[in-house]
Amino acid sequence: LIGVSRREIPDEEFRNQAREAIAQYSRRAPDEQVLDGLLSRLQYIGNSFDDTAGYAKIGTAMDALDADAGQPLSRVYYLSTAPEYFPVITEALRENGLHHNESSEVRAVIEKPFGTDLASARKLQEVVHGVFRERQVFRIDHYLGKETVQNVMAFRFANMMFEPIWNRNFIDHIQITGAEDIGIGTRAGYYDHAGALRDLVQNHMLQLVALTCMEPPASFEANKVRDEKVKVLQAIPPPTLDEVPQMTVRARYTAGVSGGQEAPSYLDEAGVPEDSNTETFAALRLEVDNWRWAGVPIFLRTGKRLARKVTEIAVQLKPVPHLAFQSKGSVGVQPNQLILTVQPNEGVSLSLGAKIPGSRMRIRPVNMEFLYGTSFMSQSPEAYERLILDAMRGDATLFTRNDEVDAQWSIIDPILQAWHSRDGAGVPTYEAG
Amino acid sequence: LIGVSRREIPDEEFRNQAREAIAQYSRRAPDEQVLDGLLSRLQYIGNSFDDTAGYAKIGTAMDALDADAGQPLSRVYYLSTAPEYFPVITEALRENGLHHNESSEVRAVIEKPFGTDLASARKLQEVVHGVFRERQVFRIDHYLGKETVQNVMAFRFANMMFEPIWNRNFIDHIQITGAEDIGIGTRAGYYDHAGALRDLVQNHMLQLVALTCMEPPASFEANKVRDEKVKVLQAIPPPTLDEVPQMTVRARYTAGVSGGQEAPSYLDEAGVPEDSNTETFAALRLEVDNWRWAGVPIFLRTGKRLARKVTEIAVQLKPVPHLAFQSKGSVGVQPNQLILTVQPNEGVSLSLGAKIPGSRMRIRPVNMEFLYGTSFMSQSPEAYERLILDAMRGDATLFTRNDEVDAQWSIIDPILQAWHSRDGAGVPTYEAG
Repeated sequence: LIGVSRREIPDEEFRNQAREAIAQYSRRAPDEQVLDGLLSRLQYIGNSFDDTAGYAKIGTAMDALDADAGQPLSRVYYLSTAPEYFPVITEALRENGLHHNESSEVRAVIEKPFGTDLASARKLQEVVHGVFRERQVFRIDHYLGKETVQNVMAFRFANMMFEPIWNRNFIDHIQITGAEDIGIGTRAGYYDHAGALRDLVQNHMLQLVALTCMEPPASFEANKVRDEKVKVLQAIPPPTLDEVPQMTVRARYTAGVSGGQEAPSYLDEAGVPEDSNTETFAALRLEVDNWRWAGVPIFLRTGKRLARKVTEIAVQLKPVPHLAFQSKGSVGVQPNQLILTVQPNEGVSLSLGAKIPGSRMRIRPVNMEFLYGTSFMSQSPEAYERLILDAMRGDATLFTRNDEVDAQWSIIDPILQAWHSRDGAGVPTYEAG
Repeated sequence: LIGVSRREIPDEEFRNQAREAIAQYSRRAPDEQVLDGLLSRLQYIGNSFDDTAGYAKIGTAMDALDADAGQPLSRVYYLSTAPEYFPVITEALRENGLHHNESSEVRAVIEKPFGTDLASARKLQEVVHGVFRERQVFRIDHYLGKETVQNVMAFRFANMMFEPIWNRNFIDHIQITGAEDIGIGTRAGYYDHAGALRDLVQNHMLQLVALTCMEPPASFEANKVRDEKVKVLQAIPPPTLDEVPQMTVRARYTAGVSGGQEAPSYLDEAGVPEDSNTETFAALRLEVDNWRWAGVPIFLRTGKRLARKVTEIAVQLKPVPHLAFQSKGSVGVQPNQLILTVQPNEGVSLSLGAKIPGSRMRIRPVNMEFLYGTSFMSQSPEAYERLILDAMRGDATLFTRNDEVDAQWSIIDPILQAWHSRDGAGVPTYEAG
């Protein structure tokens, strides 16, 4: 592990920082001997991002490690910097011939956001692809490092129960909710430029749509999974500017009460400009125009300062085709709902119609539930822990591919444009909480 | 309510017996005024079953009640007697013209068993049908008065989730278990003539097969439901005598330990003859030969002195067609099992494959569960309470129709014959508990 930043830090100090961090975050005390061995392999190089010549030092250090190991090692550049430095850094790597290696893998991990609209995203891809091949690029988004992604795939593809009904014949609609009870906190600088649509819909919620609606992949190899996800994203027709008002809702929170506490209006949050037109709530009605899903509405909604914190995928089945019960007053027969809860209590629940005990045939909904927390004792790794390990292993399954990013922005871009052009009309409001 | 038996009991004493019974079994204290009103309508007639002339007194009493009511009332004869009296009683009712009524319904409730093999069942039907039309006959079996029957129908037909996979394309096999931990107690006189096959398989377990496999009825009207059930029973090919050894297992318990207590061998139970060849365990492999179920094995098993008491319908789905997980060592992917528990803890559970938290895609089965007991506060009526009320209302849904009884015996009869002819070989044994 070679640390690089503008500051000059002696190797020993860098190792001590790492030792302290490991002590602080480890679930159990590390084996000192193992830890010493690990830390002895850490080094530090001070170099400003734009000092192109200095990159040669990084190359020399890596060559030395290869020589030590007696074989060429895989190289992973983790660009944990603001996006505006990506062009500078990747170009410098290329100029120094560090962007590829004859006899080992070279990868680059890039932090989100991957653009702020379709045009900027495409510009970023162009820069990145000027240096790296797509298979070298690992776009990291901690959200996809949670267990969710693989849980949704396991749920769908390790069970025979669901796939037969997972289509337009049996599913009435899908609701994906990403509700937060908190406000924007101290993030006005970022959030007021982003808004709910860019912050959560463009990336996380569209990824949940892709996972929910994708065809079964032939394997869980990264590109097989991403091929299937991108097919879903590309099958969602982006709205025209005229359709945006019918297909979307945006709003901004005003003062209210949240969690028993008074909560300020968005416009009164620290750092939010008085004339902000940023939305803190966004809702969309999409469709996936393919054989499996044609005509099934998919509703997305996300927002800050909503009543409670919950992220869930709710799949509502069609009503039963024929109510043999009807004549006996079974007003309680409701369509089945299958809910995959992503957070806070990850699990699966299914609403069923059951007979109310007694001599009459009366039905009411009951719930069956499974919670990961109560069924498994083992803990999930932290999202970053997981993703960085995957990048080192070269498993790109949980990283967003170029064409996914492109498809996501293609859906969102017309909405951004339409909302922007309507800014004169102001953003509708909702009370916090 | 007119009580009839051989003994002479004054009306007042009969009413007091009823008053005491109501006090003993009521869930809450009855309203005294209502109770007095009810009891004043009770009367008693002493008459020997075979005193044909005496039946006229019953007719006179019923006519008087009609006159009091100012309208012809429905009449229900509840033959709570041993089956050998059915011919005598029904014939006497006919001779006295009490078996039908011009202007009101006349019904007869008959207690099980409805025959002891196909021939005796058909003889009984002949006797009953010599007096009553089938629609007048209510064959009572407390087992069908439990909530089970309607719960299974509600589960299947009030939910969109299950019907699409409820067929040979998705279901691998069905296991229906009726296990008891107790022995035969003091019932040797009955049980040694019956055996497990007659005691539980012929009636209750075949009814569970019918409920599990029936097509959705057009309504819950009694004959619509029974039409669908009987179609299932008639689609089960009875084994030939040669097939019986391959399709069935029988056994008898020997001494062992059950529930921490020493349990005697069946042959040592009080009242069991030394040379008994009666089975206390029976298992069958059946198929329902129709479009929906062809080729799906249905396993039935029931017995006394098994490890625990449970009655359940377990529907095992086929394995998923393709394991995208396989290369990553997902040995834990098991076929989904949907279990309808009938007793002791009535409910529904579904085994799902879920991802074990961690960075690898490992799957293991978890359970989702719904229990009637925890979801509903209201209590179910006692089976008899329910069934007698249904008979008074004229709702025959939970009563077994003639053709059902016939179809059930048709399946069981060859097995009885084959087992009987093999008696020389003795019955295999299993240890109690």
